[in-house]
Amino acid sequence: MGEKVRGHLMIIGGAEDKERKCDILKKVVELSGGEKASITIITAAAQNPREVGQNYINIFEKLRVRDAVALNIETRQEAFRGEIVDRIVSSTGIFFTGGDQLRITSLLGGSPVYYALHAAYDRGVLIAGTSAGASAMSDIMLIGGDGDQAPKGNAISMAPGMGLLEEVVIDQHFAQRGRIGRLLLAVAQNPYVLGVGIDEDTAILVNPDATFTVVGSQTVTVVDGKEVEYTNVSELSPGEPLNLFGARIHVLSSGAGFNLKTRKPFSKFEN
Amino acid sequence: MGEKVRGHLMIIGGAEDKERKCDILKKVVELSGGEKASITIITAAAQNPREVGQNYINIFEKLRVRDAVALNIETRQEAFRGEIVDRIVSSTGIFFTGGDQLRITSLLGGSPVYYALHAAYDRGVLIAGTSAGASAMSDIMLIGGDGDQAPKGNAISMAPGMGLLEEVVIDQHFAQRGRIGRLLLAVAQNPYVLGVGIDEDTAILVNPDATFTVVGSQTVTVVDGKEVEYTNVSELSPGEPLNLFGARIHVLSSGAGFNLKTRKPFSKFEN
Repeated sequence: MGEKVRGHLMIIGGAEDKERKCDILKKVVELSGGEKASITIITAAAQNPREVGQNYINIFEKLRVRDAVALNIETRQEAFRGEIVDRIVSSTGIFFTGGDQLRITSLLGGSPVYYALHAAYDRGVLIAGTSAGASAMSDIMLIGGDGDQAPKGNAISMAPGMGLLEEVVIDQHFAQRGRIGRLLLAVAQNPYVLGVGIDEDTAILVNPDATFTVVGSQTVTVVDGKEVEYTNVSELSPGEPLNLFGARIHVLSSGAGFNLKTRKPFSKFEN
Repeated sequence: MGEKVRGHLMIIGGAEDKERKCDILKKVVELSGGEKASITIITAAAQNPREVGQNYINIFEKLRVRDAVALNIETRQEAFRGEIVDRIVSSTGIFFTGGDQLRITSLLGGSPVYYALHAAYDRGVLIAGTSAGASAMSDIMLIGGDGDQAPKGNAISMAPGMGLLEEVVIDQHFAQRGRIGRLLLAVAQNPYVLGVGIDEDTAILVNPDATFTVVGSQTVTVVDGKEVEYTNVSELSPGEPLNLFGARIHVLSSGAGFNLKTRKPFSKFEN
């Protein structure tokens, strides 16, 4: 676990503060080079990409980056265009907006833009994403499942993600939308996968040493199924409730962190 | 843990099915003596006790009990009346309705009715409760805390409960109201206390051998803090987010159960 973390990721649970302290977005700017940051906003997830893109351009400019550009990729063809790839190649930070994570992967998956993003990540360029842009980070992503529901058969849907973070499944708007049930289901399906539920205005910063630390005002919930003793997940009919015995749960707040290799949390005092 | 379970409790997460299969209420009737059941409905929690009481009388009569009577205790004085105590003494099952758990304890706590309930429980009479009536069962009860929120300082309120089940804190409408955060907070405050979150139309049946089994259509979530390695709960300012490392979480559905002495879940195949 964790050998495949190759660079820096900032995975944000949605609704990050954009007007007051802006802790998370400031960290995105800092890790993208501060005043030298050249940030590319990818709005592929959004239904209203121009509006969302302009909004983030304004915010990043207010945070004094060198430049911020939105790539509003709305067709597969655009994900093959040379000047779009060039912009990614010259960026010091990439920011995926919210929307629908399936739009991200269905528009970008396997395209030159996709490979340019992986190459940038491998070079150490920060890749950030919020909400749908957070879910899309991992190799397998949650794409559906009601909140405030008991975990039950057929209650979640998954799809292949962008593959920047392996062996993890991300959920966002986590506490605010009551999503513990769908994260438990995802972990039950394959306890090899670590469940990471990120609250609104909260993020994990994943480092190349395969640790992450928490930034923001709320919490991150980690569900580790490594020690699960029993589950009936493979036998569930649609709507039939889950059994899952022996999962581990950790709640982390700002400054605390988690080692993806050892699957151990650490407090800011140990960091 | 568990030495203090003295009789039979049916603790229901609220919104139990009253019209279709009625699995939970049928089990209440069965454990109260079936056709010989004499069930007393305690509506102390309810704002509209007469309506709620009559509703349950109708249901229990439909389920063919010998008799069902609602005690609409609305003042402390009524909790001292001999004929009300007599009715409890002659009951084969007690059923606490939903409403506000603080109404139950503030009206009944320390009264002759309170002692009669404990005596009935000690004699093996089934004590059942739904929603607020479920929360009130334990010696410490949750009385407040928003759902769909990250666990944070000052985010929950607790009060002394009816003390029929020790070393446990119950939460109800659990998945449906996104209450994992408040259960994690309660467990963080004292990991000696086992957190039991019961979904709607779901119940735990607590037996004198200090095990419980699950009845109903949804799930029961158990949070065990015994192995917690670190928490900042004692240092939190109001609104400051929680750290809690190393809690155990189990999800149980119908037929599965839990041993309160060993803190181990068991599946219906082991039962």
